[in-house]
Amino acid sequence: MEKIEQAIQDIYADDVAMCYGCGRLNESGHHFRTGWDGENTVTFFTPKPEHTAIPGFVYGGMLASLIDCHGTGSASLFLHKKNGHVIGDGAEPPRFVTASLKVDFLKPTPHGIPLKAVGMVTEIHPKKFKVETNVYADEDIVASGEVIAVVMPKSFGSKED
Amino acid sequence: MEKIEQAIQDIYADDVAMCYGCGRLNESGHHFRTGWDGENTVTFFTPKPEHTAIPGFVYGGMLASLIDCHGTGSASLFLHKKNGHVIGDGAEPPRFVTASLKVDFLKPTPHGIPLKAVGMVTEIHPKKFKVETNVYADEDIVASGEVIAVVMPKSFGSKED
Repeated sequence: MEKIEQAIQDIYADDVAMCYGCGRLNESGHHFRTGWDGENTVTFFTPKPEHTAIPGFVYGGMLASLIDCHGTGSASLFLHKKNGHVIGDGAEPPRFVTASLKVDFLKPTPHGIPLKAVGMVTEIHPKKFKVETNVYADEDIVASGEVIAVVMPKSFGSKED
Repeated sequence: MEKIEQAIQDIYADDVAMCYGCGRLNESGHHFRTGWDGENTVTFFTPKPEHTAIPGFVYGGMLASLIDCHGTGSASLFLHKKNGHVIGDGAEPPRFVTASLKVDFLKPTPHGIPLKAVGMVTEIHPKKFKVETNVYADEDIVASGEVIAVVMPKSFGSKED
């Protein structure tokens, strides 16, 4: 599997599809797209030439961004499925925000090859999910991460939060 | 204090000054610059219009990137000072890489105002430092983070690592 056919970000509501990491409507963004691969969730990304740490290696902030959006996307996939939906049935998926993000950088990440983030989702509360992710460059796990994702409050960003 | 006069990234060796986050020689990058403010380290950054999560709020991956490079920059400032140097004395500062990054997103981060990352460095090993950072939007702490930064091995990225 090297391409996501059906990504959860493809069906986010328009008003929450502007994320710099994964929003399909953000013209300047990374356009991360997350889908199922069996029981796991998967996001592919090939960093651009400028996304370097030192020449030849990928910028850690880019890996953190990948793990972050892969986390919220994975949680959305998981809860959408739990709610009885599949991508394409017309139902709007839940949108998540990141409560916390942890990344361990395990190896220098070679630049110029596609990266593959593979995630596993665990429910820790009906509105809170843990997503554990490994990022692969070819066969090597170059980074691992954990995201705690929570359902985006309807009041997100309002003073009433 | 609203501007960094002397940033450690200004004096990184050219061959390690290409970081997408903080490299002065990366034309497309964020150009984070980190300096001293008393006993603390400080980095300012104003996200670009496209760096959104949902409209009106800053992308979490951008905050993670800020905390990441602020961490390595702070560790470099700290060790350079410990080694008896000041920015401008002609000595090349140590360059760090991130071993791990943790970010807690505490509040939605309003877009369009300068963010201020304030860090405190602790030595946990002669080549390994912990940097605890709070990110402020005006008076609010919107995110907090912890970076474990290690001195970049001379062999970084080589197969001998």
